[in-house]
Amino acid sequence: MRKKVVSLPTEPRRFPPLYRTVANNDDGLESRSYVPGSLDIPVSDPLNDRPGANPEQFIGLALSTCLNATLEAIERRDHLPHTAKVHTIVEMARDVRGFQFYLTAEVMLPGVDEKRAKAMIDLAERRCPVAKLMQGQPNVQVKLVANFTPVRPISN
Amino acid sequence: MRKKVVSLPTEPRRFPPLYRTVANNDDGLESRSYVPGSLDIPVSDPLNDRPGANPEQFIGLALSTCLNATLEAIERRDHLPHTAKVHTIVEMARDVRGFQFYLTAEVMLPGVDEKRAKAMIDLAERRCPVAKLMQGQPNVQVKLVANFTPVRPISN
Repeated sequence: MRKKVVSLPTEPRRFPPLYRTVANNDDGLESRSYVPGSLDIPVSDPLNDRPGANPEQFIGLALSTCLNATLEAIERRDHLPHTAKVHTIVEMARDVRGFQFYLTAEVMLPGVDEKRAKAMIDLAERRCPVAKLMQGQPNVQVKLVANFTPVRPISN
Repeated sequence: MRKKVVSLPTEPRRFPPLYRTVANNDDGLESRSYVPGSLDIPVSDPLNDRPGANPEQFIGLALSTCLNATLEAIERRDHLPHTAKVHTIVEMARDVRGFQFYLTAEVMLPGVDEKRAKAMIDLAERRCPVAKLMQGQPNVQVKLVANFTPVRPISN
């Protein structure tokens, strides 16, 4: 992301877009974020008490939905029943500059033995477009779990 | 993301989490994605006609909201009025394996001259936690615009 390019990415010439959408925020963290004609979601700073969604929740929804959609395709290809569930824990912390997120995507694959489940998750990570955008980031983990970790809010 | 680590990322020791949330998908692309006690959003494959959000929209909402929140903080620090708006165009295409997304975050900064606006956007990219997670990805662009590009859906 650091290197600015004026032209479009080169990939669209080889792989033309099949779908296009736009997601907007016009007024910052205490406002709303929306997809014209579709979603319209109040947003708020996660560190205050006002109700509202936040970037942490949006990126968690993106990763959980995308990984599970990819796992579903792998299950279908392998003639397995669709049992995959994905819960992504997103934590926000300070960073050297500004803030950073830690993402932990927990995957349950009931009925699939561990070795096979791990291979499926590894493949899903390489195919899921959201995971690809975060490739190589040490702050992002995808892991097989037998049960989801109970998630407790952090009290300020 | 490719290298699996069993332990937690090392950063939480230096920068402990200030906020934690979880975002879940239990049944794949034709189901719902949710944050327990908060968001509950029907999801659907963007390539069919069923209504529902999708990973493209979620990641666009994450980047637009996060970048504008970061720009808002920079405007405040610089004693500028908050005028920033961010619209993120997300396109989905095939890839060598599976699919890929192209993200173009368009930023308007009305009332700020071009040189200063570009410096602010550059700083926002380095501070916004969502942009950091996609750092170095050629598929992600953040750019200053005088007007937002009209976004037309792709007909299948």
